[in-house]
Amino acid sequence: MSIDTFTINDNHRLNLPTIDMPPRILLGAGPSNSHPRVFAAMIAPTVGYLDSNFIQVMDEVSELLRYAWQTNNEYTVVVSGTGTSAMEAAFANVVEPGDRVLVGVAGYFGRRMVDIAGRYGGDVRCIEAVWGEAFTLDEIRQAMEVHRPQVLAVVHAETSTGVRQPLDGLAELCREHDCLLLVDTVTSLGGVPLYVDDWGIDVAYSGSQKCLSAPSGVGPLTFGPRALEKIDNRRTPIANFYMNAELMGKYWSGTPRGYHHTAPAHLYYAMREGLRLVAEEGLAERWARHQSVAEAFWAGLEEMGLTPHVALEYRLPSLTTVRVPAGVDAAAVARRLLNEYNVEISGGLGDLAGKVWRVGLMGYNARRENVAVLLRALAEVLGR
Amino acid sequence: MSIDTFTINDNHRLNLPTIDMPPRILLGAGPSNSHPRVFAAMIAPTVGYLDSNFIQVMDEVSELLRYAWQTNNEYTVVVSGTGTSAMEAAFANVVEPGDRVLVGVAGYFGRRMVDIAGRYGGDVRCIEAVWGEAFTLDEIRQAMEVHRPQVLAVVHAETSTGVRQPLDGLAELCREHDCLLLVDTVTSLGGVPLYVDDWGIDVAYSGSQKCLSAPSGVGPLTFGPRALEKIDNRRTPIANFYMNAELMGKYWSGTPRGYHHTAPAHLYYAMREGLRLVAEEGLAERWARHQSVAEAFWAGLEEMGLTPHVALEYRLPSLTTVRVPAGVDAAAVARRLLNEYNVEISGGLGDLAGKVWRVGLMGYNARRENVAVLLRALAEVLGR
Repeated sequence: MSIDTFTINDNHRLNLPTIDMPPRILLGAGPSNSHPRVFAAMIAPTVGYLDSNFIQVMDEVSELLRYAWQTNNEYTVVVSGTGTSAMEAAFANVVEPGDRVLVGVAGYFGRRMVDIAGRYGGDVRCIEAVWGEAFTLDEIRQAMEVHRPQVLAVVHAETSTGVRQPLDGLAELCREHDCLLLVDTVTSLGGVPLYVDDWGIDVAYSGSQKCLSAPSGVGPLTFGPRALEKIDNRRTPIANFYMNAELMGKYWSGTPRGYHHTAPAHLYYAMREGLRLVAEEGLAERWARHQSVAEAFWAGLEEMGLTPHVALEYRLPSLTTVRVPAGVDAAAVARRLLNEYNVEISGGLGDLAGKVWRVGLMGYNARRENVAVLLRALAEVLGR
Repeated sequence: MSIDTFTINDNHRLNLPTIDMPPRILLGAGPSNSHPRVFAAMIAPTVGYLDSNFIQVMDEVSELLRYAWQTNNEYTVVVSGTGTSAMEAAFANVVEPGDRVLVGVAGYFGRRMVDIAGRYGGDVRCIEAVWGEAFTLDEIRQAMEVHRPQVLAVVHAETSTGVRQPLDGLAELCREHDCLLLVDTVTSLGGVPLYVDDWGIDVAYSGSQKCLSAPSGVGPLTFGPRALEKIDNRRTPIANFYMNAELMGKYWSGTPRGYHHTAPAHLYYAMREGLRLVAEEGLAERWARHQSVAEAFWAGLEEMGLTPHVALEYRLPSLTTVRVPAGVDAAAVARRLLNEYNVEISGGLGDLAGKVWRVGLMGYNARRENVAVLLRALAEVLGR
């Protein structure tokens, strides 16, 4: 077929200006602003996916992720997609058709777990809580006894509600029941105390654009030995190629490295820098910073007569849900913050739509100046 | 669980220097170097995924992709993953369990199609050709009559062999058989003549890091009306969440936009700029540039006594396989080009491992200066 056979259609040939994005202060549910050093790292020269320099970057990302997650898991990688892809990777690999999967649903991302586990043939059972509350260990124990699942899935930091789900005792419970413990750490990794090994978590995943201060687009994922054993002993093939644990494993640590896909190198560079900032600051200091900045925000809300939706005991420092006062149009307030102050906050999702605002103070954005601008702007918009 | 309950383990707390990548000239199978303007665009400020500025970027990417692909398909998006994720998205959505899928396998990526189609329950049938050759229309017609598939999948530009598969007549054949035509355009989009609508292609996907001169990490994907009809009439749910056509569709064009994942905004910015460069240059000029630069390379190879593996008639301009002369260690030559000249070329894959080098002259890298450095460096290393 020759180049001249058909005529080129110019209908969709837009003539666009250079990209021009407003300088948002991103205090919503994510993405957050990346640390400026992350952007500097992100535009390092492109190298091939088998270049020894790139393999070294992959190894460094793995190792720094182990620090951030507090795990010795050899299988600690990033999926070349967003946090949602890492979530899907977690379920796609450890759930076999017919496996009972018990999901703790107390928010939007718990519901998403149900959807995804079902697509891989899981026999999904739910335990439900009101959005804004956490499960007690007793509630989970009772459900485990009823459903006898092969996988227990819970959200450590529910981005739709601002709840921190305590994970105490779940590892022991899962071991009694020969069940894997799978935990969503999208909004906790790098901002909220989290010990994958000490807490006996078998599978965890996260995102890059929350407390890790990198752009969206890579999804951290770790499998512990019990998860790998279940994957090795699957009776059915993994119904996914891109997020396939075995193929990704050969790509991340095979000798020689097995080609799987062409990694988004620049996002790996960015992730390396985001994780390098975590290592420099230190986890204890980082967790304390998130906590103290969140407390400053909560104190400011109280002064203004506004109320966090979640009890202090279970309240995440990285993501606060703030109740919308009666008579206030939540969306209009968010729109004014965005248009007049360049400050983004998020609205409520699912059961909390229209009822709360969601404020993220995550990673690089967990700083007092961000609390100050948000409190002041919010006071001006609300007339308080 | 208190912050003090466990002790932080510093074993994996690497103390790393700033990232430092060598300035490679990437003339392998991909990634290619991005145009410098793409990196400038890539670090535009982060905005939220529902920010009107971001929705506009998505719309612009869609529209410019329609130009690059020469399609009016409304469903023209990028998957938030690499080209492999777009490949998987193509099969995951149009293949239902039990569907007969006829795959033309004449290289590594044809084989990958077989793997992926099988993971979604496809009853996969193959037609095979020697690596380095193309299928004739007659061969495909005969296989269609034997297998009566619901989906015919072929690779337009086989990155492992350097073959351009002619697509003439396939649309008519597929319509006779009520079959979808699914085409891999990873190494052709933006570099090789390709008319999705005029050629009757129902499903196409590509990558960002080849002829489009953007970094790896987003996978262009388009579904025509016949593909959408098949997806709408599926009897079984799509066994994938992240690459789900329906959910991605609501994200790209819903009113209001439905949240699906947090797009890797900076890669979308980069893609917008890569596609903007395509629109500025114009497809005819761009295709002609790829052809003339490749011809200069082929002429230089001939002078040196080296032979392209593929007959001129089916030879891709974007990716040339060069036969390794007898007695030459292919890997050692590639290593010297990389270490001494910062020039990356790729080795052979699969059936062609050790037998060919793969040279990409794609997008921004399809320039005479790159041909010059490679020819000269190759002559020096080979002593010719």
